[in-house]
Amino acid sequence: MMRIAYLDPVPEEAAIALFLDELKKHAGPDTEISYHTLEKGADNYEYQVYETCMGPLILDKIRKLEEEGYDGVILGCFYDPVLEAAREMCKRMVVTGAAQGAVTLASLLSARFSLLIPRDKNYTHMRDMVVKNGALEKLASIRVLNIRVLDLQDSEITDRRMEEEIEAAVKQDHAEAIVLACTMEAGKYEALQKKYQVPVIDPAVAGLKLNEYLIRCRRDCGWYVSKTGTYETPSQEEWASYQF
Amino acid sequence: MMRIAYLDPVPEEAAIALFLDELKKHAGPDTEISYHTLEKGADNYEYQVYETCMGPLILDKIRKLEEEGYDGVILGCFYDPVLEAAREMCKRMVVTGAAQGAVTLASLLSARFSLLIPRDKNYTHMRDMVVKNGALEKLASIRVLNIRVLDLQDSEITDRRMEEEIEAAVKQDHAEAIVLACTMEAGKYEALQKKYQVPVIDPAVAGLKLNEYLIRCRRDCGWYVSKTGTYETPSQEEWASYQF
Amino acid sequence: MMRIAYLDPVPEEAAIALFLDELKKHAGPDTEISYHTLEKGADNYEYQVYETCMGPLILDKIRKLEEEGYDGVILGCFYDPVLEAAREMCKRMVVTGAAQGAVTLASLLSARFSLLIPRDKNYTHMRDMVVKNGALEKLASIRVLNIRVLDLQDSEITDRRMEEEIEAAVKQDHAEAIVLACTMEAGKYEALQKKYQVPVIDPAVAGLKLNEYLIRCRRDCGWYVSKTGTYETPSQEEWASYQF
Amino acid sequence: MMRIAYLDPVPEEAAIALFLDELKKHAGPDTEISYHTLEKGADNYEYQVYETCMGPLILDKIRKLEEEGYDGVILGCFYDPVLEAAREMCKRMVVTGAAQGAVTLASLLSARFSLLIPRDKNYTHMRDMVVKNGALEKLASIRVLNIRVLDLQDSEITDRRMEEEIEAAVKQDHAEAIVLACTMEAGKYEALQKKYQVPVIDPAVAGLKLNEYLIRCRRDCGWYVSKTGTYETPSQEEWASYQF
Amino acid sequence: MMRIAYLDPVPEEAAIALFLDELKKHAGPDTEISYHTLEKGADNYEYQVYETCMGPLILDKIRKLEEEGYDGVILGCFYDPVLEAAREMCKRMVVTGAAQGAVTLASLLSARFSLLIPRDKNYTHMRDMVVKNGALEKLASIRVLNIRVLDLQDSEITDRRMEEEIEAAVKQDHAEAIVLACTMEAGKYEALQKKYQVPVIDPAVAGLKLNEYLIRCRRDCGWYVSKTGTYETPSQEEWASYQF
Amino acid sequence: MMRIAYLDPVPEEAAIALFLDELKKHAGPDTEISYHTLEKGADNYEYQVYETCMGPLILDKIRKLEEEGYDGVILGCFYDPVLEAAREMCKRMVVTGAAQGAVTLASLLSARFSLLIPRDKNYTHMRDMVVKNGALEKLASIRVLNIRVLDLQDSEITDRRMEEEIEAAVKQDHAEAIVLACTMEAGKYEALQKKYQVPVIDPAVAGLKLNEYLIRCRRDCGWYVSKTGTYETPSQEEWASYQF
Repeated sequence: MMRIAYLDPVPEEAAIALFLDELKKHAGPDTEISYHTLEKGADNYEYQVYETCMGPLILDKIRKLEEEGYDGVILGCFYDPVLEAAREMCKRMVVTGAAQGAVTLASLLSARFSLLIPRDKNYTHMRDMVVKNGALEKLASIRVLNIRVLDLQDSEITDRRMEEEIEAAVKQDHAEAIVLACTMEAGKYEALQKKYQVPVIDPAVAGLKLNEYLIRCRRDCGWYVSKTGTYETPSQEEWASYQF
Repeated sequence: MMRIAYLDPVPEEAAIALFLDELKKHAGPDTEISYHTLEKGADNYEYQVYETCMGPLILDKIRKLEEEGYDGVILGCFYDPVLEAAREMCKRMVVTGAAQGAVTLASLLSARFSLLIPRDKNYTHMRDMVVKNGALEKLASIRVLNIRVLDLQDSEITDRRMEEEIEAAVKQDHAEAIVLACTMEAGKYEALQKKYQVPVIDPAVAGLKLNEYLIRCRRDCGWYVSKTGTYETPSQEEWASYQF
Repeated sequence: MMRIAYLDPVPEEAAIALFLDELKKHAGPDTEISYHTLEKGADNYEYQVYETCMGPLILDKIRKLEEEGYDGVILGCFYDPVLEAAREMCKRMVVTGAAQGAVTLASLLSARFSLLIPRDKNYTHMRDMVVKNGALEKLASIRVLNIRVLDLQDSEITDRRMEEEIEAAVKQDHAEAIVLACTMEAGKYEALQKKYQVPVIDPAVAGLKLNEYLIRCRRDCGWYVSKTGTYETPSQEEWASYQF
Repeated sequence: MMRIAYLDPVPEEAAIALFLDELKKHAGPDTEISYHTLEKGADNYEYQVYETCMGPLILDKIRKLEEEGYDGVILGCFYDPVLEAAREMCKRMVVTGAAQGAVTLASLLSARFSLLIPRDKNYTHMRDMVVKNGALEKLASIRVLNIRVLDLQDSEITDRRMEEEIEAAVKQDHAEAIVLACTMEAGKYEALQKKYQVPVIDPAVAGLKLNEYLIRCRRDCGWYVSKTGTYETPSQEEWASYQF
Repeated sequence: MMRIAYLDPVPEEAAIALFLDELKKHAGPDTEISYHTLEKGADNYEYQVYETCMGPLILDKIRKLEEEGYDGVILGCFYDPVLEAAREMCKRMVVTGAAQGAVTLASLLSARFSLLIPRDKNYTHMRDMVVKNGALEKLASIRVLNIRVLDLQDSEITDRRMEEEIEAAVKQDHAEAIVLACTMEAGKYEALQKKYQVPVIDPAVAGLKLNEYLIRCRRDCGWYVSKTGTYETPSQEEWASYQF
Repeated sequence: MMRIAYLDPVPEEAAIALFLDELKKHAGPDTEISYHTLEKGADNYEYQVYETCMGPLILDKIRKLEEEGYDGVILGCFYDPVLEAAREMCKRMVVTGAAQGAVTLASLLSARFSLLIPRDKNYTHMRDMVVKNGALEKLASIRVLNIRVLDLQDSEITDRRMEEEIEAAVKQDHAEAIVLACTMEAGKYEALQKKYQVPVIDPAVAGLKLNEYLIRCRRDCGWYVSKTGTYETPSQEEWASYQF
């Protein structure tokens, strides 16, 4: 059994049902998935300042999850906030990000894919997530829904806009797969995938599957993040000596 | 339970014990792994002409494995022969390659890695495998053992040469992980990983773990290779009408 | 006199008149061009599985052509099937591909060019041909005719579609030259070039001109494909010992 | 007169004399430079977790500096911590980073340069700073001093090691300029530049010069960071509503 | 006080008022700016042959300006003619180009920008200016006004066309800043910047600000173009021995 | 018969025998090759200022050669001076450069090659020639002889140094072909090629072979440099109206 935490890096718990259902539905049979949030912070990541301010809160939460014995944690936001620092910090627990999971999988399942992003404010930041995950050569396009993150679940136009942009991505940009580039597009991938007959990747679920995979690599083969160089962990003593 | 075939794309079966032991040892608890070879063909892939000549034999074998109900097949050679065509052909079975598995994993576990290749004859071909898998930016170096593929298991100098090159990769090239870039380097990764304390990726085993992951993505989430565009399968009728 | 074979890597010979006329018309005065096909195989390369299955047939044919004393052979398909393996195999004969010829020439005659491809099924494969030939920086666009390869010669709409897409490539994509990215677009380049006053490159003819050039490099200067590393030829003895 | 703050993003003030002297010595005649630190935090950035934990402290300090009417602030660390978020947050004040200043200037003064970094732990992170500033094509090499950041000023071997690596960079890697890739290499550039007769760029001072330049662009021409898209500032109301 | 020459590399002086006003308006308080032209030559750079033919005239003028004690010279054309050679020739004077200034600044003020160019004749040449200045990753688009260089100031449609293309760049291409990619677009940036609320960079003025910045780097810090390798100056004796 | 001029873009004619012998020896049977120089100018291109100053002289000479009815001209210097402008100017004559010829051919004959350059002064300039010709991905290394251009023919150490660097390129850098990256390395390729059994490309001869190839493309197929966009020729009237 592997215990995996989904960390929705926002304070409110309103979205718990939505995500927990989706994650449980698609988890492996030996996965025990739980849903976690922060105690405080912003309710969105549309601005980089929020990401910076929430960094220590997320990192602290991840630290506790590792101490509690979790096998893995998924960062539930398409910016994969603090992913690099968390991989440096952890010594055993697997950390994956929603974007990392989605872009890695889209690269494995297609030769060319498009992102569906909420607003153009985040266009270059989203493109960076593709670059970071080594998939720029496979990026067909980034298409903008023009819907705020917090409205994605409730807006009447979300479904229509997603369909319009998927159609355009496939026909005009020659996309062979679609990445829903915001975790708040949750709950929608299966219907879209069925309708358009191309892989439509949900980032929260993709983050989970990547997490399961990397936990198995560690358990079955002893393969874990390199602790030489980039991801070397600071000593507990040194770290404890600092005040943040 | 997932049934996965390891296809050693060579005729002889001498290596069966070596690979089967390694694969069984590192397979997931719900994986049933079996070992397969071709009926004829060359015993190595050092030349591209052999890869071309064996292409139809491999493809035919994969077709049969899918018909027999296998969930996945691993191409047991670091050139991932016919991987692209096999992904086009298959409709349900997951096909992964040894290089694809190893390079994908090394990218996920480190910021920079080196390949250990048998001979310089294959230098540019090996580099291409890294490019294809989107990891060129993370390639620290390609280091050459100067040992023929078929001698890797038996040579007295293999272990020493691997150690020398891993040390150089880590110290001089700032590698944070190592990819053993030939399936015939099998059985060696664990000792090397323990000694050098960096991830040392065995490609056969990495191909297996990637396969398990992608089978789970298909089973649990309905995510499979896009059948639009690059990997669209030809119709059985059309294909059957040809003589090869 | 240089004897060059055009290898149409398909079984039927229906196209012989079309290609032979075009090639003879544009061959150099000291070139003796002949037309060859395979004895069996698929009649198109729209699927990668066909390319794999036909690989050994093409390679075998090329081997015989070299034994028969040909100076060069042109692979008559825009995917340049088995080009790399054939260059590894041959010791004296020059092998060129249609895409290699067309992309090389378009790069030499313009700062920016577009491809006209039959169907979007092959979009990423075609783009790869540009990458392989070092011209990605010069690629203005890939434009799709939406006509199947086998209909290109007969369809009533082919000419109109080609004109529409060339106009769009020049005006919208700032293309300065056009590559007809399928050998079945044969016989059309001269009229299009005259009408649009930009170089319009026919791949079969471009493969021929590149072949003549490389034969002269070998004859006049002793320059031939490097036999160190990537294109080192396997020994006849070793190869003969295998069964494919 | 332009008021510029140098923010040494660490708690202790021990280094004040070193930096303030260097900055005053090289500031423009109309620049009033002051030295600032944080109230708490780590004393180094060798680990990404420290950078994450100090993010909000730095951002808060920058916010106050803008409120106090400073024209510019320099982030005094070669990782340019929170630079992107700070540029998003600020509405008038110019924020520059030490790496941004050094890499931009080295690109303007040479066709090829090398970095001198303290330890190999940070090799890939340092390389990323070059990529972010659009200069990868000009990077000749990254050379490692093998001295901890906090020992750079005091170690007896620092000068010797810097000289050895500069010589190697120029002779072996064809570097035409050198970037001292840590602000703790302060106070050393002039002697090295004189000795080796190539530009040797100090990052703290380079961050200052870039800051002066961008302040003048704003004052004289109205050019400031784009507030459309990537660097759009969140509304004060929204931000104030969050608890971090 | 720094004496900076703006070199409009054309013979006529008709444009003197236009440029001199703009430059004086935006120069720093300690800058003395003067306007210079050539004695003969072409009145535009739409063709590369003109750029070649005017090369020696420009270089000679720059040589004289350095002898006369100027601190800096700005090449007043978006192709930055002879910039590389001039940097090699000069030993003290700072040489900057209009494109270099504009592209460097746009990269520092935005994550993504578009060029507005006069005619499509120069599309690839303009793109090269972005590549040379390390900003290709930030290029959102190149948009064409379809107005000849010499008509830009007088045409009734210039303003309308600029507005149309800026709107399209921001909305369709996700540009966050605009570069006016021809010095003859002078006098227009402020109104456009005010209207569209994104940085609109004038290349002549940007060339000036970059020049001031680099003069200060030299004066305050001793940083000047590397005289090792690429920009090593030939000896006066050797040069004087040649006849051109 | 095709009349091709080799333009040694320097004033002295001392080298005539050396080059003319080499070119005649390797020209095609239907090629009439002649040797031309400038009336004045520098005797080397080690500095970019010389290249600029000689630009109009070279262009004027090329213009005359086209008027005299030559079919092609080869720029006899590895910097391919004024190549782009000359391709813009000419309407019928084929212009090729020594670097263009050598790099194009090395890319066609190998998967990876090294340059042998005279001095490190020109390291980045030489690398640019590889980039311009689309071959950066195939560049194994640039190796420096440390011999001045004008000493290459006479120095006692030239042969030894070339051999040392070729050996190192093949063994250490995995080069599969060598480009002699200076026309003054003339007369040496055949012996080196024989000794090391890899293609050793002489740039003057390679420029000739590329020229012959492109003349045949024009004669036999009507393919010539695109006169739309980048290489559009200015009108004779406009050009004639200028004074240079």
